[in-house]
Amino acid sequence: MNTYAVILAAGQGTRMKSKLYKVLHPVCGTPMVEHVTENVSQLGVEKIVTIVGHGAEKVQEQLGAKSEYALQAEQLGTAHAVQQAASLIEGQAGTTLVVCGDTPLIRPETMQALLDHHHATGAKATILTAIADNPTGYGRILRNEAGSVKRIVEQKDASAEEQLVTEINTGTYCFDNESLFEALKLVSNDNVQGEYYLPDVIEILQKQGETVAAFATDSFEETLGVNDRVALSEAERIMRARIAEKHMRAGVSIIDPASTYISAQAEIGRDTVLQPNVMIEGNTKIGEDCFISSGTTVSNSVIGNRTSIRSSHVYDSTVGEDVAVGPFAHLRPQSNLGNDVKIGNFVEVKKASLGNNSKVSHLSYIGDAEVGTNVNIGCGTITVNYDGKNKYQTTIEDDSFIGCNSNLIAPVTIGKGSYVAAGSTISKNVPSDALAIARARQENKEGYVTKLNGKK
Amino acid sequence: MNTYAVILAAGQGTRMKSKLYKVLHPVCGTPMVEHVTENVSQLGVEKIVTIVGHGAEKVQEQLGAKSEYALQAEQLGTAHAVQQAASLIEGQAGTTLVVCGDTPLIRPETMQALLDHHHATGAKATILTAIADNPTGYGRILRNEAGSVKRIVEQKDASAEEQLVTEINTGTYCFDNESLFEALKLVSNDNVQGEYYLPDVIEILQKQGETVAAFATDSFEETLGVNDRVALSEAERIMRARIAEKHMRAGVSIIDPASTYISAQAEIGRDTVLQPNVMIEGNTKIGEDCFISSGTTVSNSVIGNRTSIRSSHVYDSTVGEDVAVGPFAHLRPQSNLGNDVKIGNFVEVKKASLGNNSKVSHLSYIGDAEVGTNVNIGCGTITVNYDGKNKYQTTIEDDSFIGCNSNLIAPVTIGKGSYVAAGSTISKNVPSDALAIARARQENKEGYVTKLNGKK
Amino acid sequence: MNTYAVILAAGQGTRMKSKLYKVLHPVCGTPMVEHVTENVSQLGVEKIVTIVGHGAEKVQEQLGAKSEYALQAEQLGTAHAVQQAASLIEGQAGTTLVVCGDTPLIRPETMQALLDHHHATGAKATILTAIADNPTGYGRILRNEAGSVKRIVEQKDASAEEQLVTEINTGTYCFDNESLFEALKLVSNDNVQGEYYLPDVIEILQKQGETVAAFATDSFEETLGVNDRVALSEAERIMRARIAEKHMRAGVSIIDPASTYISAQAEIGRDTVLQPNVMIEGNTKIGEDCFISSGTTVSNSVIGNRTSIRSSHVYDSTVGEDVAVGPFAHLRPQSNLGNDVKIGNFVEVKKASLGNNSKVSHLSYIGDAEVGTNVNIGCGTITVNYDGKNKYQTTIEDDSFIGCNSNLIAPVTIGKGSYVAAGSTISKNVPSDALAIARARQENKEGYVTKLNGKK
Repeated sequence: MNTYAVILAAGQGTRMKSKLYKVLHPVCGTPMVEHVTENVSQLGVEKIVTIVGHGAEKVQEQLGAKSEYALQAEQLGTAHAVQQAASLIEGQAGTTLVVCGDTPLIRPETMQALLDHHHATGAKATILTAIADNPTGYGRILRNEAGSVKRIVEQKDASAEEQLVTEINTGTYCFDNESLFEALKLVSNDNVQGEYYLPDVIEILQKQGETVAAFATDSFEETLGVNDRVALSEAERIMRARIAEKHMRAGVSIIDPASTYISAQAEIGRDTVLQPNVMIEGNTKIGEDCFISSGTTVSNSVIGNRTSIRSSHVYDSTVGEDVAVGPFAHLRPQSNLGNDVKIGNFVEVKKASLGNNSKVSHLSYIGDAEVGTNVNIGCGTITVNYDGKNKYQTTIEDDSFIGCNSNLIAPVTIGKGSYVAAGSTISKNVPSDALAIARARQENKEGYVTKLNGKK
Repeated sequence: MNTYAVILAAGQGTRMKSKLYKVLHPVCGTPMVEHVTENVSQLGVEKIVTIVGHGAEKVQEQLGAKSEYALQAEQLGTAHAVQQAASLIEGQAGTTLVVCGDTPLIRPETMQALLDHHHATGAKATILTAIADNPTGYGRILRNEAGSVKRIVEQKDASAEEQLVTEINTGTYCFDNESLFEALKLVSNDNVQGEYYLPDVIEILQKQGETVAAFATDSFEETLGVNDRVALSEAERIMRARIAEKHMRAGVSIIDPASTYISAQAEIGRDTVLQPNVMIEGNTKIGEDCFISSGTTVSNSVIGNRTSIRSSHVYDSTVGEDVAVGPFAHLRPQSNLGNDVKIGNFVEVKKASLGNNSKVSHLSYIGDAEVGTNVNIGCGTITVNYDGKNKYQTTIEDDSFIGCNSNLIAPVTIGKGSYVAAGSTISKNVPSDALAIARARQENKEGYVTKLNGKK
Repeated sequence: MNTYAVILAAGQGTRMKSKLYKVLHPVCGTPMVEHVTENVSQLGVEKIVTIVGHGAEKVQEQLGAKSEYALQAEQLGTAHAVQQAASLIEGQAGTTLVVCGDTPLIRPETMQALLDHHHATGAKATILTAIADNPTGYGRILRNEAGSVKRIVEQKDASAEEQLVTEINTGTYCFDNESLFEALKLVSNDNVQGEYYLPDVIEILQKQGETVAAFATDSFEETLGVNDRVALSEAERIMRARIAEKHMRAGVSIIDPASTYISAQAEIGRDTVLQPNVMIEGNTKIGEDCFISSGTTVSNSVIGNRTSIRSSHVYDSTVGEDVAVGPFAHLRPQSNLGNDVKIGNFVEVKKASLGNNSKVSHLSYIGDAEVGTNVNIGCGTITVNYDGKNKYQTTIEDDSFIGCNSNLIAPVTIGKGSYVAAGSTISKNVPSDALAIARARQENKEGYVTKLNGKK
């Protein structure tokens, strides 16, 4: 039987106090609504329809082809929101899952269990419920003796006895698709807010003599809806712990999982150690037996096995095996390091490749450069890639040695096996095996300091 | 009716094991007693009297005109401490709040509620109480049926039944001022410690037939008294969470509030994102839409809108809008950056101003300098501001371009629109629109490396 | 009476998913089995026997002379493991403590209390037990009315009533040594796994009419056994808190103990302040009144009183009193700094000594160098210690001044009180009191930029 998903993502989110549309706020680096879409897509659904409204364009831009879209131009309530999907799925036989775009923590396994329960009971609607330690504010689930749902009571309508019920409505549902859209036509906005509410569908189905089921997840935490930035940080905390646990169970050592920040997409190899206060962002892939020290950010990069990165920033780069980076290095986008490379302290690399076994150990800037293998770049070396108008390329061939505090004024090529003397500003190409030198002769003015100080 | 406040801040705090006087230990960057004084001052009190003893001078220096002071030369107990305020407030009609200098977490709202309760009941004394999960060690509050206080029982004197009482004395009180000082005269030191205890005033008032009330706050956490550094770190944790929540509710995104350290005074604009392990210290003001990355310290500085600061330290400086700082930059005091400025990696700025749109992208030191607009300062540039005896000023005028690895030996002026060649040491002024160059000619010694290696 | 200890450290630890042998995984920087050995050794035991198996050589290498060893070549169960110690301790009068190598948190005080209870009751065996909030999965302790142990029931064998028992077997025991080895001979492997289980000894002793006692610790947390990396991070969290509390009670201010990472061996002086995200590793000793800021790693180093280290890495070095390091400095091994030294931002020191009151304030590399007292090393100075083949030494004598962006090409000596001009590459020794200069004359080409831009 086909399954459809409707993701409610049209609300404004005023309590976020943000120019950014609510469901686009990120949790562990990924917008909330994208988490929901990814989770839903793991169920093998026929079609995902995201209901967009405020910030519609940006949501569509973010999710792209992962979803189809229906516009809710006016925000007239959750039933009205689902109704907008009619042109895409109304009348189809199958099951429709309705989930909020601000509940990024509900796992696919939980949604699948909801669907399985729905199919097993043959109900026309099934509510995902949870047991809350403190249910105040939530709609309570009142069940019949047989276990089916008798009623959902909102907080404000609940009697003292009903308020003691701890099973709450999480706002996630699945429905028989045909019944859903039939029932939606009967929902009225005859209430204080003048809105069309999705829970009214439950009552309509019950009046029609249909059974409504409830599936209680044992993880209340998962059902957290994010309405403000306090809840956003709470969702982040929960997802952070979940991601860290996944990696630890797979053989990654994480010294302090509460203070290690890993994107949902990152891959990390076995026996890699992550110190605290590490940020692993985006589509990063880290090999086995690596050491990533405190204070490091690695973003959208690939890191080879047995590489250590200490207190450094790495963006959109590729780093080979057995490489040592940092502490305090900065690999800007398009840095590509071979194996056994060393990038030491206070070194910046940008749009540059370094061949195997090359070293830039200290205080250097290598930008717009192609560096061969076995090259030693001395402390303080600068590729002078910019003349105020254009950027130029530096080529340093294999086995060459660049002395300290050298300037390599691009465009320039340093030939294979050549040697640049410390303190030289190189503006012309250096042939292979040549020594290039450009510096003034040293003069020692004896007694100068004594004289200067007026001492005799 | 007038309200007075007495802050008890004379104790030694031996369990802190510190040379620093207890109430001066900071919580979120502000000394405990200063938190208390600030909180009390929000109640609109007529007079604040801080009782000082150990470290009296330093406490007075810290609080300055925020309080008046009374010296408790000998530490003879809390009643004796309050008694020292007699010369400043005795005999005045009104209410006196007595609060300990080591309870920085009690919010003004809670103290106001205490005062309101006091006035509503017409009691001569009202105790701030709290409900403790584990009351062991605290004085228990025994109430009469009507709700007024019957007795305070200290732990050591409590019967088994009394030990089950969970309402505890927080050590914060308010009193009818005239009654307080009358009663203080009757307190004796006839006890094991030979001290004059403030709770004895309660008993004295009761014996006089007066009503003593109790106001129970629902936040036990707030009433934490700091007696050692474990409690100090606990107070820091609670206040840190409180400050972070305030900013999140106002529209700041804080990825991990438990690991983000913001002073009580800091202001942060909406839609600014703080990554974990950020320290925002002192009177810092950060604009809207900023990005402050992990590993950043910003202290007593003003940061404009849409500015990003990554893994950098910023002290006593002003940073404009749309500025990018870091990673790994250091703005020392009196750095003043205009708008659209870039300060890149491994750059230090000190006592220097940079005009709009100027860039110092890498590995440079700009100290004691005035830099105009649209200036590009190449990698490795150094303002040579110190000759071993004095510091001198460098001026770099608008639109100029400083080549890499240049030394600008101050005092020196680089004229508008001029160009300094890479690798130059500039010791004389450069006229506007001039090219300044100071470097040796490059010589390529062909085959030198081959010969050196004994290869033929 | 003699006490012996048997540490079970032969298991593979497959759930760690690691090439590293389980008990060698570190907690707060020290391998688990080493924690156990250190804790046991504080009891004044006669002999410690570590049972090794998987990774036997590496465990022996790690523990060295702290233990004797018995090899369990095949993993045939815990009773079989203890049996391997027979040749070393069988037949001795005394008490034998058996503890697992993956329980690093059990404190010596707890083991001592277990032994004391054992001796007080005169039992032949005593089990260390704990009260678990959720005992599922653990062996339950069933007691006789007199308090002695009736039976240990494993989870799978427990009746519904027995499953409600919350007192659990922690897997730590002490035994009368002679009885232990007699009983071990009677343990059979007639069970599903075909293994020899140590708890069977309990049953055997009981059948022999001996009393088995149980000592319940009040800290379930302490008894955590580490079987996977999730538990490893949990053990790390608990030990981290324990270490931090020890230092706070001794007078160290730790702003956020949950995010401060201190080795078990580190010593820290009173009134030193540790900001969050600090790593204090190995045998580090930090003095009094120091300030260690966020983002700092100090490893196996000695830091003098009143020294501040900000966002820097320090390894295997010695730092004097009143020194300022960082932010963003890197002291590599064998850096030895005197008193009143300043190492500023973006400075690397390696195998170098600096005398009192010397300063390297910015962007410098000082490697393989001996620097005297009162030396000022200007920004961008580089000791050119490597010519591509060998490393050489630089000597900078007292009171000298090295100008900015200088190269000191080693081997070279800069004489006492001499002055190197900014931008100089120094390849010859500089006599005392001399000025050394090596730079090209500055030429200003007026109007050059105007011409270049085609402006008239």
